[in-house]
Amino acid sequence: MSESGLLERLIEALRVLPGVGHKSAQRMALHLLERQRERGRHLAAMMAEALDKIGNCQQCRNLTEHAVCSICRSAARDATSICVVESPADLSALEVATGYRGRYFVLHGRLSPMDGLGPQELGLNLLAERLAAPGLQEVIIATNPTVEGEATAHYLTQMARKHDLKVSRLAHGVPLGGELEYIDRGTLAHAFGQRVRA
Amino acid sequence: MSESGLLERLIEALRVLPGVGHKSAQRMALHLLERQRERGRHLAAMMAEALDKIGNCQQCRNLTEHAVCSICRSAARDATSICVVESPADLSALEVATGYRGRYFVLHGRLSPMDGLGPQELGLNLLAERLAAPGLQEVIIATNPTVEGEATAHYLTQMARKHDLKVSRLAHGVPLGGELEYIDRGTLAHAFGQRVRA
Ligand SMILES: [Zn+2]
Ligand SMILES: [Zn+2]
Repeated sequence: MSESGLLERLIEALRVLPGVGHKSAQRMALHLLERQRERGRHLAAMMAEALDKIGNCQQCRNLTEHAVCSICRSAARDATSICVVESPADLSALEVATGYRGRYFVLHGRLSPMDGLGPQELGLNLLAERLAAPGLQEVIIATNPTVEGEATAHYLTQMARKHDLKVSRLAHGVPLGGELEYIDRGTLAHAFGQRVRA
Repeated sequence: MSESGLLERLIEALRVLPGVGHKSAQRMALHLLERQRERGRHLAAMMAEALDKIGNCQQCRNLTEHAVCSICRSAARDATSICVVESPADLSALEVATGYRGRYFVLHGRLSPMDGLGPQELGLNLLAERLAAPGLQEVIIATNPTVEGEATAHYLTQMARKHDLKVSRLAHGVPLGGELEYIDRGTLAHAFGQRVRA
């Protein structure tokens, strides 16, 4: 195996995939070469095409190969509500988990001056336009519960408050199925303070 | 996310990789699109090139982009010894683990009539030529210790015995670091029967 320069280069290139070390990369390369040449060629072509054609939706910045994504184009989605998320993966998780039928805005990150991520990089000028558009009634801020995610949520809340909009954030609390003894103190204190009527 | 036909097709295509389900495939696709477009393009190109150019060595059937692989070409490798393995991955494991400096022969499978794998598919006519070639002295049969691997080893042993060659197989026994109580009975009985002087 180690004698093939091209094979070694393929193994090295596969390590760009998340969670793939040398051993898995070798297994993947040999699997494709030994058993799945046709599907491997298809994967290479799909990967090149997707990286070439998929960009950000002009309205919500979600990933799409069209100018405007299908959620933004869909008449079945409620145009009076926008849910702001950090990433396409978060959008996908919400789509799967909730019955939300409004629209989205994807930041592709969170405010992080240390990493050079400011309002411009997150497309907040575009978000500002959408917040000012007639017909919008509700903004749901669904950033992650990290320090930077919270700071971003705070910033977005200020932006949204300039308009006559209902602004909400995801509820914090004890995760369903979580055991109290394993939950971090901050979350537990918050859940206790915000307890709801049984 | 779910709105992008091209993205969904990329996610589906990624599932050809071993051990990659829908969730990992989605994570991989988003990682490339959100963070690693350049290296993703490089991977797609390497994959296409490798699948296009890598074939089997004319002498040993190992994977290589050349007519004859670098092990077979190398004057530093002992041409009097051939080690027969089922797969390039097995060859690689032996290269890493042992100090073996001879040459190889790769079956790309094991005798398995049910799967349509007979002597022809395993390149045994080519192996027969190599066994008959002047200068060869030793054959090491390193098939896997499965039922089919054992049957293949038996067949290969018969082939090799037609020539004046030293024929050997990998030793079976207790794996280093293994605990007796967790070792299967067959292996334990074998190790006991074949015990060596301490
Ligand atoms: Zn959109
Ligand atoms: Zn070779």
